[in-house]
Amino acid sequence: MRARRVGAEYPGAMAEDLDELGERAVTAARALARARRAAKDAFLTGAAALLEERREEVLAANAQDVAAAETAGADATALDRLRLTPARVAQMAEGLRAVAAQADPVGEVVAGWVLPNGLRVSQVRVPLGVVGVVYENRPNVTADAAALAVKAGNAVVLRGSSAAARSNGQIVELLRLAAAKAGLPEDAVLAVPPGDHETVRAFLQLPVLDCLVPRGGRQLLAAVRQYATVPTIIDGEGNCHVYVDRAADLAMAEAIVVNAKTQRPSVCNAAETLLVHAEVAETFLPRVAAALQGVELVGDERVRRILPGVGPASEEDFAQEFLGPKLAVGVVDDLEQAMAHIARYSTGHSEAIVTEDLRAAERFLAEVDAAAVLVNASTRFVDGGELGLGAEIGISTQKLHVRGPMGLRALTSVKYQIRGEGQVRS
Amino acid sequence: MRARRVGAEYPGAMAEDLDELGERAVTAARALARARRAAKDAFLTGAAALLEERREEVLAANAQDVAAAETAGADATALDRLRLTPARVAQMAEGLRAVAAQADPVGEVVAGWVLPNGLRVSQVRVPLGVVGVVYENRPNVTADAAALAVKAGNAVVLRGSSAAARSNGQIVELLRLAAAKAGLPEDAVLAVPPGDHETVRAFLQLPVLDCLVPRGGRQLLAAVRQYATVPTIIDGEGNCHVYVDRAADLAMAEAIVVNAKTQRPSVCNAAETLLVHAEVAETFLPRVAAALQGVELVGDERVRRILPGVGPASEEDFAQEFLGPKLAVGVVDDLEQAMAHIARYSTGHSEAIVTEDLRAAERFLAEVDAAAVLVNASTRFVDGGELGLGAEIGISTQKLHVRGPMGLRALTSVKYQIRGEGQVRS
Repeated sequence: MRARRVGAEYPGAMAEDLDELGERAVTAARALARARRAAKDAFLTGAAALLEERREEVLAANAQDVAAAETAGADATALDRLRLTPARVAQMAEGLRAVAAQADPVGEVVAGWVLPNGLRVSQVRVPLGVVGVVYENRPNVTADAAALAVKAGNAVVLRGSSAAARSNGQIVELLRLAAAKAGLPEDAVLAVPPGDHETVRAFLQLPVLDCLVPRGGRQLLAAVRQYATVPTIIDGEGNCHVYVDRAADLAMAEAIVVNAKTQRPSVCNAAETLLVHAEVAETFLPRVAAALQGVELVGDERVRRILPGVGPASEEDFAQEFLGPKLAVGVVDDLEQAMAHIARYSTGHSEAIVTEDLRAAERFLAEVDAAAVLVNASTRFVDGGELGLGAEIGISTQKLHVRGPMGLRALTSVKYQIRGEGQVRS
Repeated sequence: MRARRVGAEYPGAMAEDLDELGERAVTAARALARARRAAKDAFLTGAAALLEERREEVLAANAQDVAAAETAGADATALDRLRLTPARVAQMAEGLRAVAAQADPVGEVVAGWVLPNGLRVSQVRVPLGVVGVVYENRPNVTADAAALAVKAGNAVVLRGSSAAARSNGQIVELLRLAAAKAGLPEDAVLAVPPGDHETVRAFLQLPVLDCLVPRGGRQLLAAVRQYATVPTIIDGEGNCHVYVDRAADLAMAEAIVVNAKTQRPSVCNAAETLLVHAEVAETFLPRVAAALQGVELVGDERVRRILPGVGPASEEDFAQEFLGPKLAVGVVDDLEQAMAHIARYSTGHSEAIVTEDLRAAERFLAEVDAAAVLVNASTRFVDGGELGLGAEIGISTQKLHVRGPMGLRALTSVKYQIRGEGQVRS
């Protein structure tokens, strides 16, 4: 069954079909599982040096991608995500060095004990094996994802967007060169060349993938949910709420809402909906509206009675991530109603309450079902770097395996090692 | 979309369609997430008492299931799995009490720290939410699975086999009664009435399921892999190997092989293949064959040269779980070849080596990719009870979320609770 050809002319293309690519990934994963930290770190720092030394090649490949996207009529956001600059290449290199500086999770003894019959049990951390990453425009994901996957002892198979094909191909080539220089298999990093929808679907069902991480918007996640037959970690959906309670410090609430919405509106931990307790709405809404200069507000009826200039918020407005300068606003009667609204529309990413009331804070922390719940802090803190967890491959909004920022440990599994002297079960 | 009717006449049936059932599970899950341990334990001990008090009703329902299965021509193994006895009901009750005695995983603080900006971060253990269990004949799974799911703070939706419908319905009724008596929602335990294949498929795609645990054979697992769109934990495939190394203590090896194969052949941690190093094959094979009275051996060519009475082992013999008194046997040249055979045929459950050689033991422990790897011990030890982990809902052979025995913690997730005093991101 070698029918799934994937365009060998692609720069960095490693195999003529997905099955062969999969076999090569498995072989590489076996070697990587036993690789010492020193070799993995040499790969990372070596790749960082290569990115800097050969920056112009990367930028030239990227310029071709950007030009093609412009011709194809891509919008400003898409072009910005696609575009590499000397500063962004430097950031990628810095990211690789930061992962090198993190501890190696492989071999960590998670737990261990001796049984009454003398069997010695250890639960040790091991790599997942082969990690697949499917992502959209940003070419920096190529280096970031490969760094984390390989440091955690995995082979990685990358599937970026067609629009970034030349940039990604160039980066993959440098990563493979760095792997070889560090004495690791080149196939530690493999790329699926861009193809049609059928190719993507075949990738989502590639049996050798021990884990698939999609990084992208709703459409990508929907496709993964529908077609993937391999284990996946759903990431990055963030319809995040800030609830301003009756007992909020309104100056603090204003600062948190403005920060959560505007500090970087395009990312998943930015706020998309503001809920305000009815008792403080008349005071707080005009104040926060004035502070949210440049943000389009849409509101429910009670909001619009207080802020007549605000447009109506549809069901869809409360359900979606704007990922831009737009905020849905609602007035609620109490904490209960705020939590019910969040339970209905939340994607389970990050949810915040602003309150000085202990009971309200504790109930919100306990009852709101999300990867992160915050009291009196901006949702923007929910990422691996800010929380002190190191680099992340994404932010999981599912409940199995990992929830919240996914760092090195999220790319590992465990196994039991059991040592005896001939014990049998009676 | 209320088209999926599921037979309301079924005993214990709770809803006329899966969507309504799902909504009720979600409502129950919210209450259960906040339930105190005392209430959950009262549910478990109360259910145990009810099972004992009303044992005759359970046995009568089961007798009907068994009679119907006999009429339908079920084989002895299927009938044995289906049949309840006073002793088995007592075991179920004991199982419920044992789960009550285990610590409550919910609320456990997994980790916590303070960030430079003063934010206090806690990672706390929370229930998954709604857990689905799809299983085959054994009616005891009804009580066992519900006990673990509810103790971990989840609502459980059970989908047993049609053949055990009356038994399961009776047990579910008692569990729901016990939940109500303990002040928990009755809908903590819900059952999907038996239906056609379409109903099963709809269950595997029920959006409210935070996790689905299939308990059953290959066909069930294949259906789950193909159709499930909710997160799943694949469990129970155990094509387990024992490798007898050149440096093995052959008396120990004999005891371990006999135990791993015959102590309880029908379960997933029983051995299905024996691999023997060529240097000890001539000595060991006749000896172990004599000790494996009543076990049908099939072997490769080198085995059959030493044991001429043994039938040939096909590719399929090495790939399958016999789950009965049959063992595939192979001779290998060295550790490398043994590990290659295991890598090819293993389902990643439990793999054992018998050796006195340190380097062989360490390589086997490090390189064999399975939920459990054992040195000089029977594969039969790989279950939650034997390893001291408490009751289990199954043994995971996947790498995400949980690997090996799945106890209470496997039925939980975590969330970050972040407490601040107005921090915003700069």
